[in-house]
Amino acid sequence: MTVLILTSEEDVTADMVVLRLGEAGVPVVRLDPADLTNGVALSGEYVRGAWHGHLSVGGRLVSMSGLRSVWVRRPGAAATRAAHPSAWLTEESAQALYGMLRCTDARWMNHPDAAQRARHKPWQLHLAQRSGLPVPATLITTFPQAAREFAERCPDLVVKPVSGAHPQEPPRAVPTSRVAPDTDFAAVAFGPTLLQRRIAKRADIRLTAVGDTLLAARKPTAPDARPDDVDVRFTPSVSPWLPVDVPPRIAEGVRRYVRGAELAYGAFDFAEDADGIWWFLECNQSGQFGFVEMDTGQPIAAEIAKWLAGDGNPDRRCADGDRSTAS
Amino acid sequence: MTVLILTSEEDVTADMVVLRLGEAGVPVVRLDPADLTNGVALSGEYVRGAWHGHLSVGGRLVSMSGLRSVWVRRPGAAATRAAHPSAWLTEESAQALYGMLRCTDARWMNHPDAAQRARHKPWQLHLAQRSGLPVPATLITTFPQAAREFAERCPDLVVKPVSGAHPQEPPRAVPTSRVAPDTDFAAVAFGPTLLQRRIAKRADIRLTAVGDTLLAARKPTAPDARPDDVDVRFTPSVSPWLPVDVPPRIAEGVRRYVRGAELAYGAFDFAEDADGIWWFLECNQSGQFGFVEMDTGQPIAAEIAKWLAGDGNPDRRCADGDRSTAS
Repeated sequence: MTVLILTSEEDVTADMVVLRLGEAGVPVVRLDPADLTNGVALSGEYVRGAWHGHLSVGGRLVSMSGLRSVWVRRPGAAATRAAHPSAWLTEESAQALYGMLRCTDARWMNHPDAAQRARHKPWQLHLAQRSGLPVPATLITTFPQAAREFAERCPDLVVKPVSGAHPQEPPRAVPTSRVAPDTDFAAVAFGPTLLQRRIAKRADIRLTAVGDTLLAARKPTAPDARPDDVDVRFTPSVSPWLPVDVPPRIAEGVRRYVRGAELAYGAFDFAEDADGIWWFLECNQSGQFGFVEMDTGQPIAAEIAKWLAGDGNPDRRCADGDRSTAS
Repeated sequence: MTVLILTSEEDVTADMVVLRLGEAGVPVVRLDPADLTNGVALSGEYVRGAWHGHLSVGGRLVSMSGLRSVWVRRPGAAATRAAHPSAWLTEESAQALYGMLRCTDARWMNHPDAAQRARHKPWQLHLAQRSGLPVPATLITTFPQAAREFAERCPDLVVKPVSGAHPQEPPRAVPTSRVAPDTDFAAVAFGPTLLQRRIAKRADIRLTAVGDTLLAARKPTAPDARPDDVDVRFTPSVSPWLPVDVPPRIAEGVRRYVRGAELAYGAFDFAEDADGIWWFLECNQSGQFGFVEMDTGQPIAAEIAKWLAGDGNPDRRCADGDRSTAS
């Protein structure tokens, strides 16, 4: 049974996982959907009530019924490196590839439907609430008056994008920023605006969930940090990420979230306040983990390899005991 | 409890359903996501573990917790009629609107996840097979040799797009065409190609599923039709669509398909052969139905209105008895 990894050629994070799978003797096929019709070929036959699918990568033929799992890492858009690329060819190729993979019994990290759903931040906030995770008071609105009333109740606010990255080429990360006290919010009418109570944080937390396994890392806020230094991605770093135990109630909430979202992998961002409370900020279903593993030495790649190889199967994990750092 | 209809302003098919809902005294809000920030506003607040969302359309305020159902009919892309439209504003607005609607308890026709999944033709064929519907032998391939071997086994073939409509502006329907007997299939290597055994049909069938209710229509093939007239959408019409009973085994298969696909609405296309067998061709989760209702007088709009109003609830339907024409 083979692990299929969908990603671009240059992906050192995927390399880390491939290495682990190789050590474990698990067959791996790695392909970039961008190479469809140019090194990557596919075929699926529906005859007399049965379905048989095959992939060919660099001349190697793999039966789709022999796939144990599919890791959707950083795949390129389908057939964009074909001899004659076009929007039509990309659409045809994507539908053929993902349509066939959806017919297999393979486990997905993450399933395309779950991945698509998990990108919606309003839904993330609601699921985090329902999962029992602390969520800072948040407003998403196009009503200037609603924004003004919210700012009266929560005078210390940050603003961040609803959707994540700005869709320019290459996509640009939009930093979370502090809202100035004299903001009048009239511009809110021109586009949905996400306002959130600023957490006066003493640390950033990155919690990586791989199935039921939770690995958390903590980066203390610099002692001389200004309250305007909100976004850890855009703030000068004074400390590396350090491993940290997951508080049991957070572990419970995260597992509930992961199950509710039907995710096999999720990268959670929390802000830790002065009381030690971890406030949920977001869960990125395709979040990077290489930088955390580099700093902390936590075996995230190994856990992903284990999950893809099948050792992450919940039934088998029960017998193995709980490997989470949380319990 | 309100029915939310997401569609463009000019949509006479939606008008038919709105009329039925109005007759039944069911409150309806109709909006086009394209009008976000320009006539349509939204707001969602996440405070102390609770979530409250609102929509405003033409000055009318609706609580999202008061939505009984959402009909995703023909919505425009979000905020494209805003004062200053942009890809970024569309992304932010779509994530805000659909992200919040995903937090509600409303029933969807169809849920965005189910709709997205249901568009994949390879997956449709597989689900139809598993549901017990007759599926013509089909190959989707980029291997010329696989195409040649398939053509030897099934000499009378049609070719059709894997993905549906060509993504030009406006999208162009690509007709299903007969494959010439001397085709060498070398070009298959340049793009996934869907080849299917041609059904020598005596009629086209359009079966509309609204929840568990099935309404089928039949259009007999013209006596002088040529075998190359494959695609009913591009063939001169000699007969209107006429109501027809659904064979019990087809009804069973379609209901299994609809449940497996988690669809509330689906427009199924079948080809009826000389033996009266209905061969599954595809299921369009957003297929038009106005032309069928016009020809047959079947109450499709009324059934959709009933489903949206809540009478389509499976639990209630049990008490009401089965309204399908099939049983």
